[in-house]
Amino acid sequence: MADAARQRRGGRVARRKERIGAPIVQKRYITREIPVYELLDQAGLDLIHDTSMEILEEVGIDFRDEVALEHWRDAGADVRGERVHIPRGLIEEKLEMIPEEYTQVARNPDRSVVIGGKNTVFAPTFGSPFVRDLDNVRRYATLEDLQNFIKLTYMTPELHHSGGIICEPVDVPVPKRHLDIVYSHMKYSDKPFMGVQSAPERALDSCKMCGILFGDDFIKSNTVMTSVVNCNSPLVWDASMLGALRHYAEHNQAVLITPFIMAGAMAPVATAGAIAQLNAEVTSGLAYSQIVNPGAPMVYGSFLATVSMQSGAPMMGTPETLQMIYAVGQLSRRYKVPLRSGGMLNGAKIADAQAAFESMQTMTATLLAGTNFVLHAAGWLEAGLSAGYGKFIMDTEQIAMLQSFSQPLDLSENGLGMEAIREVGPGNHFLGCAHTQKNYLKGFFMPEVADNNSYEQWEAEGAKTQDQRAVEKAKRMLAEYEAPDFDQAKDEELQAFMAERKAVLPDLVS
Amino acid sequence: MADAARQRRGGRVARRKERIGAPIVQKRYITREIPVYELLDQAGLDLIHDTSMEILEEVGIDFRDEVALEHWRDAGADVRGERVHIPRGLIEEKLEMIPEEYTQVARNPDRSVVIGGKNTVFAPTFGSPFVRDLDNVRRYATLEDLQNFIKLTYMTPELHHSGGIICEPVDVPVPKRHLDIVYSHMKYSDKPFMGVQSAPERALDSCKMCGILFGDDFIKSNTVMTSVVNCNSPLVWDASMLGALRHYAEHNQAVLITPFIMAGAMAPVATAGAIAQLNAEVTSGLAYSQIVNPGAPMVYGSFLATVSMQSGAPMMGTPETLQMIYAVGQLSRRYKVPLRSGGMLNGAKIADAQAAFESMQTMTATLLAGTNFVLHAAGWLEAGLSAGYGKFIMDTEQIAMLQSFSQPLDLSENGLGMEAIREVGPGNHFLGCAHTQKNYLKGFFMPEVADNNSYEQWEAEGAKTQDQRAVEKAKRMLAEYEAPDFDQAKDEELQAFMAERKAVLPDLVS
Repeated sequence: MADAARQRRGGRVARRKERIGAPIVQKRYITREIPVYELLDQAGLDLIHDTSMEILEEVGIDFRDEVALEHWRDAGADVRGERVHIPRGLIEEKLEMIPEEYTQVARNPDRSVVIGGKNTVFAPTFGSPFVRDLDNVRRYATLEDLQNFIKLTYMTPELHHSGGIICEPVDVPVPKRHLDIVYSHMKYSDKPFMGVQSAPERALDSCKMCGILFGDDFIKSNTVMTSVVNCNSPLVWDASMLGALRHYAEHNQAVLITPFIMAGAMAPVATAGAIAQLNAEVTSGLAYSQIVNPGAPMVYGSFLATVSMQSGAPMMGTPETLQMIYAVGQLSRRYKVPLRSGGMLNGAKIADAQAAFESMQTMTATLLAGTNFVLHAAGWLEAGLSAGYGKFIMDTEQIAMLQSFSQPLDLSENGLGMEAIREVGPGNHFLGCAHTQKNYLKGFFMPEVADNNSYEQWEAEGAKTQDQRAVEKAKRMLAEYEAPDFDQAKDEELQAFMAERKAVLPDLVS
Repeated sequence: MADAARQRRGGRVARRKERIGAPIVQKRYITREIPVYELLDQAGLDLIHDTSMEILEEVGIDFRDEVALEHWRDAGADVRGERVHIPRGLIEEKLEMIPEEYTQVARNPDRSVVIGGKNTVFAPTFGSPFVRDLDNVRRYATLEDLQNFIKLTYMTPELHHSGGIICEPVDVPVPKRHLDIVYSHMKYSDKPFMGVQSAPERALDSCKMCGILFGDDFIKSNTVMTSVVNCNSPLVWDASMLGALRHYAEHNQAVLITPFIMAGAMAPVATAGAIAQLNAEVTSGLAYSQIVNPGAPMVYGSFLATVSMQSGAPMMGTPETLQMIYAVGQLSRRYKVPLRSGGMLNGAKIADAQAAFESMQTMTATLLAGTNFVLHAAGWLEAGLSAGYGKFIMDTEQIAMLQSFSQPLDLSENGLGMEAIREVGPGNHFLGCAHTQKNYLKGFFMPEVADNNSYEQWEAEGAKTQDQRAVEKAKRMLAEYEAPDFDQAKDEELQAFMAERKAVLPDLVS
């Protein structure tokens, strides 16, 4: 590291140290020490569970894949064509095989995460074809944007997981894209990451690259990826997703098994019904993963929005989506399976008040519902169509606050501060007292991109919106980014593997 | 009403009817049918309560008013100069006299509110000297602004209470201002409102004006105002506030007894300590109200922010303020006293993402803490220095969503939608099915100032921020405002009273 860089970083660390009163600590994950919010009573929860089981038994669900159909027949389900009718006993039996929690190992062991139980792991947004960039312009995303978001995530203590396709690197051909995505996470961060799921062979390539990075033997008995597969709601698992799921399950790699539901279009215009359908889809996918590999680590995934009955547009941060988030929290706890849910979801085009209102409505529920893996925790805009640099930064500040809130209220003698109240007494102020001197550096959370100065000072500093301040911070961070050490031999081996694969993969999807 | 106006209103009602599938109903208040969130366990709650009682017993609290000191001596407190040391038994005995809930009668009986229990009443922001106006310019507030906000509140079903000094009518001399404020609520709305508290004689004038509006006999046995008095934290009740409190309590009128605390300056840099101090201040004020008039309706008030240890600026929507809001919720339930807390609090200068993030962090906690009276539910900006027209409108949409969320999840046969799931089956969509036809109008909440259209449509419509759309809606509403009927004789009597008072009141505070 050059002297100037070291000095720069030293200055940064010192400034932050002064601000938060402690060295920068990359937290591995948070362990929630506040209660979950139980929206439904037991009878309501039972009713939704029973409705889901009724859907799987009576309506059935399509598994559009020969191998999976064979698997289900062998397991004792009633298979009619592509439609599988699954008895509830079979679902419940398979759900019991899923670990209540698992460790996803990162290449830097200090960054490994434990997913499940009272832990919550936060990861950035996922899958946006567009970015709202560092000049606050909307354009197609590139590989450089993906790498920028990986770098920002690496530098953000409140994000514990590097995510996956944070934005789509549209400048790389679709069939080759997954190689650059996985490699970028490995190279520019040392946090845990996701494999690519968009086709079975891309999942396999993700596994092979992890074999190079971690060692083939190591990944047989260790989970090094948590990826995602989506259900085609309503009630269809397609061959592509099932193939990817199988590769990951066979390799003992975790998957967020996630229906992506716009209720009203892909589920009934009925909140409880949408939850029941989602639960049927998730539990059938989870059960299938355990047929493939009993005991493989899996996550109860959920993504639920409502659609506008006027325009068909998806809506987030609405009362129905909050009910859904709390309900799936309770369902996943019932099954003792880790939960992926929520995020900073919104339908706003820019990081304005709408984006923030909807994001925070969703994110508070996400935390209080006891979610274990929060995808879309930073950067989400436009119902997921766009990843915003400014939004990313402001979201991380908000989740930092929620993470702080998830810790217990300090009820120690110092936390009660009677010493200060006795010293100061009625009619005085606490600014100079001994207790304040001792506590002022870390007594209260100090936001950075939120502006709490006077109106006059804010105006003198350019009357900036939070979005403008956040983009400026993103630029500063990227200028200061320093890559984590990376084993050169492994780097070369990965690059050779990618070159070999790119030589045989087409530039267009066949 | 002119034909054109009638037609216009008919069109509006029809459009709204179409949108929400029901006629406009001005809800009197909401009754929460979801659980409260209990942050602290019993031991934690006991510890904070005990600390508060220790403060009142050992440190004491100043009542800087001869009458009050005499009252406390008579009640058995240990009075030393202005400092009152109150035994916990005395506090607890007096708290038990406060009604668990009370009705505040509005001049339109359909607008009367019940405050306490599982009910929540929402009222607009309070006390801002500035507005961010209909041209989105920041300037001093005027009487016209106050009246505009009263009109907007009157037209907003989600606001059940007209509030009080929504913004300061700076164009009216301070000693006369209270008359115009109270009169404007009476004239331009028929919802319940607050009296003015800034000096004892202004409280008395508020009572007298209510005597004219409701009848002197009526107000002796009915509560027609819920006003506010503030503690001078730390631990001082001054003569002005005590005088106002006495007038209201003697007239059987309710008061939000509210410490206004910036923790770090007016309370220790310690969250639990700030809560304990606030609780000591509130409970002593509540107890005093019951010495004045046993059984008078009173509300446990709270306003807590933290201050930046760098700039001294107040901060809201931070983790500590959330802890405070949940804790006072639990304390007020322990004492069985209605709670005023929270609101759409934030420190942002404009209605940007910061304003929305902080507001929503605060407001979600406000709802889940079981708050009964939400002051500052709409319009708050700049730590209260400014009332925003755009912010007001967007806040009301957000609280409408939270109010919808406060109702139970529909678990009826229709809510579960199995009929639809059976009809549609795997791989199809729900847009045309019978269940959707039956439910699409009111199945899901439809926001109005949130934009969920496509990026292209949003751009074609001017690429507006939510703030811009909200200000446009405020303008439309004000253009469409129609005053509720008002008894002409009472109006004249009120105007005569005001003229008489204004003739003797000075233009400057002496």
